[in-house]
Amino acid sequence: MPDRRLDVLCIGNAIVDVIAATDDAFLAAEGLDKGSMRLIDADEATRLYGRMGPGREISGGSAGNTAAGLAMLGAAAGFVGQVADDQLGEVYRHDITSLGIEFTTPVLRESVPTARCLVLVTPDAQRTMNTFLGAAQHLTVDALDEAQVRRAGIVYLEGYLWDPEAPRAAMERAIDVAREAGNKVAFTLSDSFCVDRHRDGFNALIDGGRLDILFANEAEIVSLTGEADFEAAVASAAKRVPLLVVTRHEHGAVAVAGDERAQVPAEPVAEVVDTTGAGDLFAAGFLAGLSQGRPLRDCLRMGAIAAAEVISHYGARPEADLKALVAEKLG
Amino acid sequence: MPDRRLDVLCIGNAIVDVIAATDDAFLAAEGLDKGSMRLIDADEATRLYGRMGPGREISGGSAGNTAAGLAMLGAAAGFVGQVADDQLGEVYRHDITSLGIEFTTPVLRESVPTARCLVLVTPDAQRTMNTFLGAAQHLTVDALDEAQVRRAGIVYLEGYLWDPEAPRAAMERAIDVAREAGNKVAFTLSDSFCVDRHRDGFNALIDGGRLDILFANEAEIVSLTGEADFEAAVASAAKRVPLLVVTRHEHGAVAVAGDERAQVPAEPVAEVVDTTGAGDLFAAGFLAGLSQGRPLRDCLRMGAIAAAEVISHYGARPEADLKALVAEKLG
Repeated sequence: MPDRRLDVLCIGNAIVDVIAATDDAFLAAEGLDKGSMRLIDADEATRLYGRMGPGREISGGSAGNTAAGLAMLGAAAGFVGQVADDQLGEVYRHDITSLGIEFTTPVLRESVPTARCLVLVTPDAQRTMNTFLGAAQHLTVDALDEAQVRRAGIVYLEGYLWDPEAPRAAMERAIDVAREAGNKVAFTLSDSFCVDRHRDGFNALIDGGRLDILFANEAEIVSLTGEADFEAAVASAAKRVPLLVVTRHEHGAVAVAGDERAQVPAEPVAEVVDTTGAGDLFAAGFLAGLSQGRPLRDCLRMGAIAAAEVISHYGARPEADLKALVAEKLG
Repeated sequence: MPDRRLDVLCIGNAIVDVIAATDDAFLAAEGLDKGSMRLIDADEATRLYGRMGPGREISGGSAGNTAAGLAMLGAAAGFVGQVADDQLGEVYRHDITSLGIEFTTPVLRESVPTARCLVLVTPDAQRTMNTFLGAAQHLTVDALDEAQVRRAGIVYLEGYLWDPEAPRAAMERAIDVAREAGNKVAFTLSDSFCVDRHRDGFNALIDGGRLDILFANEAEIVSLTGEADFEAAVASAAKRVPLLVVTRHEHGAVAVAGDERAQVPAEPVAEVVDTTGAGDLFAAGFLAGLSQGRPLRDCLRMGAIAAAEVISHYGARPEADLKALVAEKLG
């Protein structure tokens, strides 16, 4: 189906997660900031991996997780990201394509391994992420299939892509191509530390009118706007983008589109095991709803349902039948 | 600690499991025998992987799982198995050594990848295993460290090692070295299909007096002995080995040593998710108890506790604190 219409094309770092249970003492001994994502080099990846307990390898990457959720919700999804010609790259490609996601980015022909993220999960279900970007940071403008970008109703980009230079340029190009084609551009701020690193760049994207939909959580939107509290930050940001979607963990989520505002509580979860991917799956549910033409409140509910599923187990890819969950809870 | 005493040295196929949820229709369409393990070649591994859903990669291998359980129960454990110089090999080595298990088998210097097992888990928690042995079948006698074998109170071998030729020879040599050193040899029949393939070889091992401890499940012991029912099979096999341990899934387990017989029920499990590794962890618990000098009944209880933990989640390596579980339930 090389020329089918895509509901959403997700562009992001192609990363295999290496997930290990740990405790607060380990994070403290390693000087790690609980709940954050930091970039590490190959040496640090080797060192930290050597000190971690046994892992589970599960495909991840923020936009990749969103693509997985979209596909499981029945949306026509695509993914763009750079893997290497190695075993983890094969795993990543398999896991994406086996969900019916269009993934045609050519393999990297350099001796840089596929990206991995060492995810340390504490008993409070918080994840602390240590990302070795490897091949992912070699996603270039050339790897972008502009015809594919034009085929997508929404192009969805992760803020993490702003960290490495080459993918940032690819992302900027994707934004231009999508806008020229009259398609929508969605963007997630990814992480409050990511906002700290790139506040000016993100504000320029927003104020340049290059984004149609902005996803953020409470910490990110407060950090981006510099406002003192949540409501002030939402009010300030909502004036600057056509559609703003903000998640608040156990306090639910809010969407604002011009004068329209919708709000939902979080979905109940029996046991929160690993919060990795919560925001990614929220975005998947929301965008799936949007591409079905649902009202904002339903889109938020779909986001909350998908997020609740992914935090109930290890790993940032859904395990349950998301479509059935949405049908059961929302109709 | 190169010359410390080991409680148990486990020798087996070093395999990374690729675990995917599936349904009965998929098994039927692929002509797969539910609950079995079959060996597949590289082409079939590629083909089947291409048809499977997204996976989780978690280190496995029968004897490797047992070593993991032993280490988590506080036993001094070692592992011998062949991995390649690739990413899955690194994952395997990390997961074993991060548990404090001695693993010194040199990496294979041939272009054969690390073994993987495509594990298909149906909603009834049964696993159907498709093993591409890759590097694992290149474990040779030369890779065996005989001094290490002599340092181990018990050498534990998986029946699956009988399938490929080179490891079979390594296993036979390990048995000889252990027996010459006055140490014990434990052996698991692994799988009833494996017994079908190698009944004569296994019977020769037993009747040659080369095994001290034999592990089996109900189907395996019935297949090995050719007896009509469970009790007859146990009675027949128990006469031929010093210590026989037989598991019966939800019906618990039995151990027979000469005139002594002990029996325990299965541990209750809230939800059985994936039965992969149940037998491996049973053996781990039993051998850990044995190396602590516990009575047979306690050894069986420890096996049942460890098995119950591993079937409550995906993957064949324990996630909970096994030592704490045993302390809580057994004291």
